[in-house]
Amino acid sequence: MSERPNTNQPRIDSQAFIARAREVLGAEAVLADPASCANYERDSLGRSGRALAVLLPASTAQTVEAMKLCAAFNVAVVPQAGNTGLVGASTPDESARQVVLSVRRMDLMEGVDVLNRSVSVGAGVRMSRLQPHLIEAGMWFPFEIAADPCVGGMIASNTGGSHLTRYGDVRASVLGIEAVLADGTVVDSLKALRKDNTGFDCKQLFIGSGGTLGVITRAVLAVHPKPMTRVSALLVPRSHDALPALLQRLEARYGELLTTFEGMSGEAIRHAYNTFAHLHRLFGDAQIPHYAVLVELASSCEFYAESLAADVHASLARLVDESLAATALTADPDEYWKLRDAIPLSLMKARQVLSLDVSFPRSRLVSFRAAVGEFLRTQHPQAVLADFGHFADGGDHLTVVIPDHCATRYPPLMMLRLRGQLYDLVAAHGGSYSAEHGIGPLNESVYRRHSPPVTQRLHGAIKQMLDPTRRLGRGRFA
Amino acid sequence: MSERPNTNQPRIDSQAFIARAREVLGAEAVLADPASCANYERDSLGRSGRALAVLLPASTAQTVEAMKLCAAFNVAVVPQAGNTGLVGASTPDESARQVVLSVRRMDLMEGVDVLNRSVSVGAGVRMSRLQPHLIEAGMWFPFEIAADPCVGGMIASNTGGSHLTRYGDVRASVLGIEAVLADGTVVDSLKALRKDNTGFDCKQLFIGSGGTLGVITRAVLAVHPKPMTRVSALLVPRSHDALPALLQRLEARYGELLTTFEGMSGEAIRHAYNTFAHLHRLFGDAQIPHYAVLVELASSCEFYAESLAADVHASLARLVDESLAATALTADPDEYWKLRDAIPLSLMKARQVLSLDVSFPRSRLVSFRAAVGEFLRTQHPQAVLADFGHFADGGDHLTVVIPDHCATRYPPLMMLRLRGQLYDLVAAHGGSYSAEHGIGPLNESVYRRHSPPVTQRLHGAIKQMLDPTRRLGRGRFA
Repeated sequence: MSERPNTNQPRIDSQAFIARAREVLGAEAVLADPASCANYERDSLGRSGRALAVLLPASTAQTVEAMKLCAAFNVAVVPQAGNTGLVGASTPDESARQVVLSVRRMDLMEGVDVLNRSVSVGAGVRMSRLQPHLIEAGMWFPFEIAADPCVGGMIASNTGGSHLTRYGDVRASVLGIEAVLADGTVVDSLKALRKDNTGFDCKQLFIGSGGTLGVITRAVLAVHPKPMTRVSALLVPRSHDALPALLQRLEARYGELLTTFEGMSGEAIRHAYNTFAHLHRLFGDAQIPHYAVLVELASSCEFYAESLAADVHASLARLVDESLAATALTADPDEYWKLRDAIPLSLMKARQVLSLDVSFPRSRLVSFRAAVGEFLRTQHPQAVLADFGHFADGGDHLTVVIPDHCATRYPPLMMLRLRGQLYDLVAAHGGSYSAEHGIGPLNESVYRRHSPPVTQRLHGAIKQMLDPTRRLGRGRFA
Repeated sequence: MSERPNTNQPRIDSQAFIARAREVLGAEAVLADPASCANYERDSLGRSGRALAVLLPASTAQTVEAMKLCAAFNVAVVPQAGNTGLVGASTPDESARQVVLSVRRMDLMEGVDVLNRSVSVGAGVRMSRLQPHLIEAGMWFPFEIAADPCVGGMIASNTGGSHLTRYGDVRASVLGIEAVLADGTVVDSLKALRKDNTGFDCKQLFIGSGGTLGVITRAVLAVHPKPMTRVSALLVPRSHDALPALLQRLEARYGELLTTFEGMSGEAIRHAYNTFAHLHRLFGDAQIPHYAVLVELASSCEFYAESLAADVHASLARLVDESLAATALTADPDEYWKLRDAIPLSLMKARQVLSLDVSFPRSRLVSFRAAVGEFLRTQHPQAVLADFGHFADGGDHLTVVIPDHCATRYPPLMMLRLRGQLYDLVAAHGGSYSAEHGIGPLNESVYRRHSPPVTQRLHGAIKQMLDPTRRLGRGRFA
């Protein structure tokens, strides 16, 4: 969108590059025809670019060869894992000069070290393969997301997810990393240690780097015992102002057992119901509430596992008795999660929609939502606030829908202006303009406006240090 | 010890520097007479250097002024917080050319944000002031260490401590940092957010940097509810091999409620008893066991808080019934912690002692201890293995005492050789040579031998990026 064309890229002898790549990596590791490349060129939002070629190294050694080859030909490289990201960071631009380097073939999993609670895996391992592998050993990687990302991409984008309040982000679960730099240097920090203070922790740079500093090839992940009891409920707060009290009451009683406290605005729920006819109508004939919270408590301990469900049900009843909550549903846990998962899917289908992934100190979330509501009412009365998000982490998927009947009043420039106004409001409330998704080409202009100049300079210096020829990744740092 | 003299340092006009510092910072912020400086020149192990002067800025703005002044005079700066570190990183060398910059006067604490579970504090705030401030708000910073460090130093050395298995290291509790670079640039990453993926996470570089990249001036810390129930026990495993099973049994039953699983070798216990006559003899007339584990379970939740103690006592009894443990003491919790705290103090008083701070994957701890025992028996039969440490985090304070009666057989060179042999054994078992203490002049030679060359090059590049004139901190990177 706002990415500047990479004028550094000289014309490349594509045919010579592809031929040499096939010699070095083997024909099966080099895709060049449009049909084979297409899947690697289109991102999860449907935006497409054009790649010079797609390289699929099967090992770290092959990744080194691939990176050296790209360096020799001065070819830009866009690392790609599961290609499920939301900021356009894993697909090439339209120049047909960038190579996609997919890590998907690096998908070996070592045995789970149950005593150490860790596992060493290739960057190309998908969540859908990792979880069964872990569960067989009684373990679990505490990330459950609708998409099916690969480990390498989750690390490169520092994934959050709906259990962050208990388990932290991916950064908190990465013990070790192996990465290959643009010049083919292997950074080996593939340790299975929980304590290791032996100098600056280089692996931290790659976590959340969006593929702009190196290609992550392997990782050692910290894993957790699989929860044996999970209790979900749908809670309707008495009013929006009661949200903090509800959260604090549940945290006081259950501590870390509270794994999810996901807010859903009434408009987001309405949108999901209007879009998906099959969704169970949870609120019966009653009106859709102004706000609802999906709560989950989970235990992986023998102690208290049995008594948890009964205690949660009693606690929720008390919250209703005390009028902190208007309703507490507990009968259909699967349906609550289906509703939650349907919300982002339904909002993606809206014709005109702005989706901001923002976060705040928890103590400022309620006042921010009030402020954004007031702003829309006065400045954009047709716009509908249909947000949802991880309230307990301070997250808000700030979604604003322009109803079809007034779409003409919101041409692209107007949408851009509204987006800018929303981001300014986020900044004014001490928020982050990218809680979970990262930067990428999509957020580059926001980055330029809202990240402090010193931080941007420091980012530039880090980029210069690890990728001095500026050939890796997409977006601001590329 | 093995630090190379910093030959970059030119002769400085000390008197001119001191006079100018007093003009810029005020007389109260500049110490130059030997008596006033002495406290800042001696580290917690008793090693002394000589400072050109001690600067005590009272604010970030004054720190900027101080750093610019040092830059103008080309003076090296050793940042210092609580000066409780164990690798000599916070005190000057003997050249009298380095300035100590103490952050102690930057000790403002903002109010605790209870809903966000965070607090913003100056780098000079000591733990002994932070904890009461938090406890007043029902909160707690999950680090309890015998020394009384300042927040800035804890971040610079990424402190671990005896609750790491549950709460992680300091890195896991730092939401935001403000730091001043060698040229006076302020890096402002002082956010109170749990999710913020807006580019490379620069603050991570300063965490564990040992003061070699910048002076940390402020931080936003994540805090936790104060535990309301704590149950401690002293467990004697049937044999050393039973340790993993004991740990796993407790983790299966109590999950994150297990906050401490601290191993103590029989020789470490014996040493504490021999050194401190007042210590309660926990094992009565029975022999000191070959190994003991201090276990703590803590809960900050209303749910199950009351039943925890009874359940723990029953569980421990079962472990004894099943012969996984020989004994489980629960009557004198304070005494167990006194013993644990007495061990490092007593070992520091040994005339000839090697203290290595190492860590392993938990799955390799037992075999490492067996290997080091075997090595000492065959190669150094007089040496006594008196280790202790955070078993659940894979940590081992690997302590080897040379009894006084054979001290003459262990002159300094022999001690150095033994130290090197131990570190080689650590590396051969996949361990880290510095789990918690970081790198400083004291373990610089170990860094050179055991950190991979690519990692060392990367560290050098990071140092070059943030401190190109190489004037900050002690040790390898300075």
